[in-house]
Amino acid sequence: MSSTIGKLFKLTTFGESHGVAIGGIIDGCPSGFKINIEHVMDLLDKRRPGKHKLSSERNESDSVEFLSGIHDGVTLGSPIGFMIRNRDARSGDYDSLKNIFRPSHADFTYERKYGIRDHRGGGRSSARETANWVVAGSIAMQILNSIGISIASYVSEIGGVQVDINDSNFDLESRYNNNVRCPVPIIAKKMEQLIQSCKLEGDTVGGQISTIISGVPVGLGEPVFNKLGSALAQSIMSINSCKGIDFGLGFLYSKTKGSDVNDQFFNTKKDKIKTVTNNSGGMLGGISNGEDIFFRTVYKPVSTIFKNQHSVNDLGENIQFTASGRHDPCVVPRVVPIIDSLTAITILDYYLLNKTTKISDL
Amino acid sequence: MSSTIGKLFKLTTFGESHGVAIGGIIDGCPSGFKINIEHVMDLLDKRRPGKHKLSSERNESDSVEFLSGIHDGVTLGSPIGFMIRNRDARSGDYDSLKNIFRPSHADFTYERKYGIRDHRGGGRSSARETANWVVAGSIAMQILNSIGISIASYVSEIGGVQVDINDSNFDLESRYNNNVRCPVPIIAKKMEQLIQSCKLEGDTVGGQISTIISGVPVGLGEPVFNKLGSALAQSIMSINSCKGIDFGLGFLYSKTKGSDVNDQFFNTKKDKIKTVTNNSGGMLGGISNGEDIFFRTVYKPVSTIFKNQHSVNDLGENIQFTASGRHDPCVVPRVVPIIDSLTAITILDYYLLNKTTKISDL
Amino acid sequence: MSSTIGKLFKLTTFGESHGVAIGGIIDGCPSGFKINIEHVMDLLDKRRPGKHKLSSERNESDSVEFLSGIHDGVTLGSPIGFMIRNRDARSGDYDSLKNIFRPSHADFTYERKYGIRDHRGGGRSSARETANWVVAGSIAMQILNSIGISIASYVSEIGGVQVDINDSNFDLESRYNNNVRCPVPIIAKKMEQLIQSCKLEGDTVGGQISTIISGVPVGLGEPVFNKLGSALAQSIMSINSCKGIDFGLGFLYSKTKGSDVNDQFFNTKKDKIKTVTNNSGGMLGGISNGEDIFFRTVYKPVSTIFKNQHSVNDLGENIQFTASGRHDPCVVPRVVPIIDSLTAITILDYYLLNKTTKISDL
Amino acid sequence: MSSTIGKLFKLTTFGESHGVAIGGIIDGCPSGFKINIEHVMDLLDKRRPGKHKLSSERNESDSVEFLSGIHDGVTLGSPIGFMIRNRDARSGDYDSLKNIFRPSHADFTYERKYGIRDHRGGGRSSARETANWVVAGSIAMQILNSIGISIASYVSEIGGVQVDINDSNFDLESRYNNNVRCPVPIIAKKMEQLIQSCKLEGDTVGGQISTIISGVPVGLGEPVFNKLGSALAQSIMSINSCKGIDFGLGFLYSKTKGSDVNDQFFNTKKDKIKTVTNNSGGMLGGISNGEDIFFRTVYKPVSTIFKNQHSVNDLGENIQFTASGRHDPCVVPRVVPIIDSLTAITILDYYLLNKTTKISDL
Repeated sequence: MSSTIGKLFKLTTFGESHGVAIGGIIDGCPSGFKINIEHVMDLLDKRRPGKHKLSSERNESDSVEFLSGIHDGVTLGSPIGFMIRNRDARSGDYDSLKNIFRPSHADFTYERKYGIRDHRGGGRSSARETANWVVAGSIAMQILNSIGISIASYVSEIGGVQVDINDSNFDLESRYNNNVRCPVPIIAKKMEQLIQSCKLEGDTVGGQISTIISGVPVGLGEPVFNKLGSALAQSIMSINSCKGIDFGLGFLYSKTKGSDVNDQFFNTKKDKIKTVTNNSGGMLGGISNGEDIFFRTVYKPVSTIFKNQHSVNDLGENIQFTASGRHDPCVVPRVVPIIDSLTAITILDYYLLNKTTKISDL
Repeated sequence: MSSTIGKLFKLTTFGESHGVAIGGIIDGCPSGFKINIEHVMDLLDKRRPGKHKLSSERNESDSVEFLSGIHDGVTLGSPIGFMIRNRDARSGDYDSLKNIFRPSHADFTYERKYGIRDHRGGGRSSARETANWVVAGSIAMQILNSIGISIASYVSEIGGVQVDINDSNFDLESRYNNNVRCPVPIIAKKMEQLIQSCKLEGDTVGGQISTIISGVPVGLGEPVFNKLGSALAQSIMSINSCKGIDFGLGFLYSKTKGSDVNDQFFNTKKDKIKTVTNNSGGMLGGISNGEDIFFRTVYKPVSTIFKNQHSVNDLGENIQFTASGRHDPCVVPRVVPIIDSLTAITILDYYLLNKTTKISDL
Repeated sequence: MSSTIGKLFKLTTFGESHGVAIGGIIDGCPSGFKINIEHVMDLLDKRRPGKHKLSSERNESDSVEFLSGIHDGVTLGSPIGFMIRNRDARSGDYDSLKNIFRPSHADFTYERKYGIRDHRGGGRSSARETANWVVAGSIAMQILNSIGISIASYVSEIGGVQVDINDSNFDLESRYNNNVRCPVPIIAKKMEQLIQSCKLEGDTVGGQISTIISGVPVGLGEPVFNKLGSALAQSIMSINSCKGIDFGLGFLYSKTKGSDVNDQFFNTKKDKIKTVTNNSGGMLGGISNGEDIFFRTVYKPVSTIFKNQHSVNDLGENIQFTASGRHDPCVVPRVVPIIDSLTAITILDYYLLNKTTKISDL
Repeated sequence: MSSTIGKLFKLTTFGESHGVAIGGIIDGCPSGFKINIEHVMDLLDKRRPGKHKLSSERNESDSVEFLSGIHDGVTLGSPIGFMIRNRDARSGDYDSLKNIFRPSHADFTYERKYGIRDHRGGGRSSARETANWVVAGSIAMQILNSIGISIASYVSEIGGVQVDINDSNFDLESRYNNNVRCPVPIIAKKMEQLIQSCKLEGDTVGGQISTIISGVPVGLGEPVFNKLGSALAQSIMSINSCKGIDFGLGFLYSKTKGSDVNDQFFNTKKDKIKTVTNNSGGMLGGISNGEDIFFRTVYKPVSTIFKNQHSVNDLGENIQFTASGRHDPCVVPRVVPIIDSLTAITILDYYLLNKTTKISDL
């Protein structure tokens, strides 16, 4: 297990989905910052299942309790311990899964790696863990906002229904106006319909998310093995069911020539060096160049489907298996606050790492 | 700077492309392993530019000198120091670049981050650094081979010319039989032609690489923040010009339903649990499941083109600029041994991390 | 703040003495170990103040709640989250200290480092934190015991009253038979008397502890910067008021000649290589040599005394100050389970690190 | 092996004493610092054996070659690679030791830990490694000096001949005026005589070093597991033959009462908070308090003596053994620049770590 992320702003987490609680410790949060608890709660709510009809019907009560590191609402510089109790833990729901390795789930790999597993709701491999990331992410985001950096992700594709890659004519702020967290209303509508039809079929569907980071100063990223892209990729690949990430033009680059895609520099009237295009997604040589950073990530469909599948039980017998219970037909919209959170944690960490780069910083 | 990769098998590197030397220290290499120096030299040769007509004509002499950690050819357990002298360092070639921020290069970001840069050949941001990775990668690969794990990457796309994703009817061993490191001869031929035509135009072209890891035991990967996919993504995003990575079906997942892509388990006659399909690319919950691990990576075209471009000099003046000198029209084929090397370093590291997971391991 | 200790067996902690709770996360604990909760509770009790008349009269209720990582009493391999609520937090007791920097306390340095502090009971700098170490230490100790390694510390000096360094004619198991945790009854009695007289005077007294680790296999310790002595020194210097550590003959070495103190090897009849003497304290070149490891540590007197002292308040005014409230006249006996705990955490960590040293381990 | 020290200013080293070379990589050195190479060479000379009659007669030529990270004498921010060739490697001198475990040397523990060892001159366990530390230490020291922090160690005891602990009436700058690096001439003379007589007897002798760090700002140290004392102890216990460290009053604390040793605060006329005494050695709660930091360290006598000793060979046979060759009768004076170097590396690292503590630092 390796449950810590970050080098200076560090989050360490614990918790199985149906244990007593989940929680974490944020170490290295600068002292003297006034935390807005409403922001934390709001972001947790956005991550929560059971908020609307497209999502799973579990009513997880994500009420975070801060245990240390904050006094009168202000960070002390000491580690911030927090905890979220698991209240709606109907673990009996999972008894039938005790001896089964669900297809495309982590049951099998956990059992083999550790020789033991908590079968209830996926145990440690459950996406419930992501609530911890949102708590730390909210704090990181608030600090970043205070220094002019903002992060916004939105759902850009569900099951083939996608936002036109060349369309930037929408308001990112509106992404939470609908259930699918897509800022283009007409596409959002189609996505919702697709998810509903999957739900009726007992099936699930995959999708993509686009993320934009604005206001990043030049200089974040630590070559050669902690380039900013490396750091973001590592963080974000932690998300359950995330199967890929690309930056700027990303996978489209393989079809291009240098003369088409090089980002040429120019100096604006305000003596600020900018690039004409931003195909590289805001990073050069693994270091932010002051342009918006943007990247896409992709998610496989939720593995729990209400259809008959082949599998194996823990005696090694081939069996057939149909899931029951409460599950999301599409988890992608819920990933939006999660990816914003991991992104914030990483960007803040690299912002801090960049504070001692030059001798003139000392 | 953060020039170390790995947790137990660790590589730390140094070197600017036109300084005295590049090199590194491998710390945590298990003792008692007989190293095949031929393998190291061969892999370095495969990475080297100037080997064939498609590549840059620099004649970098990558002669590695091992300085410690090996006695009579056998690893001592102590750190393995090594060095590659920069012999063909015609730094005068770069004088004209001293005051220019080349488009899509790291000149600008290095200058702003550090307040100073070695302008000669990209300095620390040069791909020359990757020779260090190949030295360590070769050793990791040899150790992995000795325990039954093998790694093979090949070029799967150059500028739109691609290997059919459903075609697996080729011999991976043959990938080094041609200049583009593509194992499908007819596609390789087309790729070579495309690169040649780019070269004539003074242009460059991007591409993709596919990587397959075979023989990985169940259990590698450390949830939740050091999942195997996270670790591989971090490593491989270190590669200059790499702009994305996806695992298994990867970005195709966003167009699929769970019922189409779930990997169902079955028990073979030999009492070995396998999956019918391997869409997830050999990992579940961030842990290897015993199937082949595979992923794709994408590379932007080399930024140095022999065409007129706009840019800015270090006085902030808008200028026009045309590159001269020796440069690759397509670097993707040379990435093949590099990605194999980083993959080997990471897989060995996670193999070691997995040796103390269970109480019965102690 | 840097609240993590360990490389493979890692403890991360949080908590101010008068906040909601203290607690921690143990990451990297091998799976499949049956934990004896009684052992945890017993060790916490041994650390607890208010257990006997020599100690502070606070009645801290150290009831640990395990939140994750253990299922049916067995470790899952996932992080073990735990928490101890602060119940007897009469923080009003500390109001008078809000604006005062107590002499030899951390009030001043915390205030200046962080620009803010939780003044109640020392906040993060309080020894209450050590309860977290004992929880993790108990688990590490249980695992070590299961593989034949045992740790025992005892008080060897209080205010000049000391156990004869050449006396080894006592039963370590009896060290908890008295209030001062000294296994030599006649010395223990004198120590108790000295502490009582200090208490009556409103004064405090310093002391020393000796620690012996038995059953350590040859090979623990990672040269050159993580020698076993380095690792133990780092851990143990975390203890509040610890001001020094030495190994084997330690500071006596400066008065000796090589011919007097070299530890000569011999082979016993059972074909086991031993040393005639063990002046070096069980380590050579930073690696355990199979002999008992032993070291001494020293503790300054508790800073809170009930006598008038000069100090400064947070306005920078020179003031006079006399402490009131509940405080230990001598904290050294309570350190015994704490040092055993940190030692166990470190030894287990280095035991795990040593499992991938040789190629034959793979 | 764990050959890296530091968190932001990091040194990774390699090298066996009789291999091709030793060397290292300094990662995280701030960019834009003009390095004084003379300082590096001078400090290396101070560490070098064979400089005077009290020392071993080997003529190690410690000529450091910088390979990267410095351009026109100024740090680039990229890793600084360096190397020192082993020129006087008469490894034939060591053939007789190939099969013998020398008493109190690391031969036995290295052989058992790694299953293999480079027997020539101690291999990796040789003090030759310390030359690497001096190279990095010199650079750290130069940076610290530029921000007003200075470090000075001196020999305070050799074999019972010691500087009066209450004597501070000497000039630290004069410590290099004699062969024993003791700033009190009359004591230095006695120490030299003692070492000479040991040499004639074929014996060796231990000693102590005192270290003073001046100009440290308030706030260095990262509680709770990276207190400044913990960090210094870890670094310095890396020194070959170092067997203990204590801070401030150190081991004397065990004989004191709180009322005697508490360091009371007062505000000087210049509105600077100071302590009347500095018994705690400049740290409170693991954080520097602005007073001088001071500590003592102790070293066992060199293990190689020219007298008959019992030992065991690698066949496990009991043997007798008398060393020959070139060895120091007392290594303590040579440790002075080494301990200054490790101290500088650690203090600079913690200085950098403290730059992102408060939100107002961002």
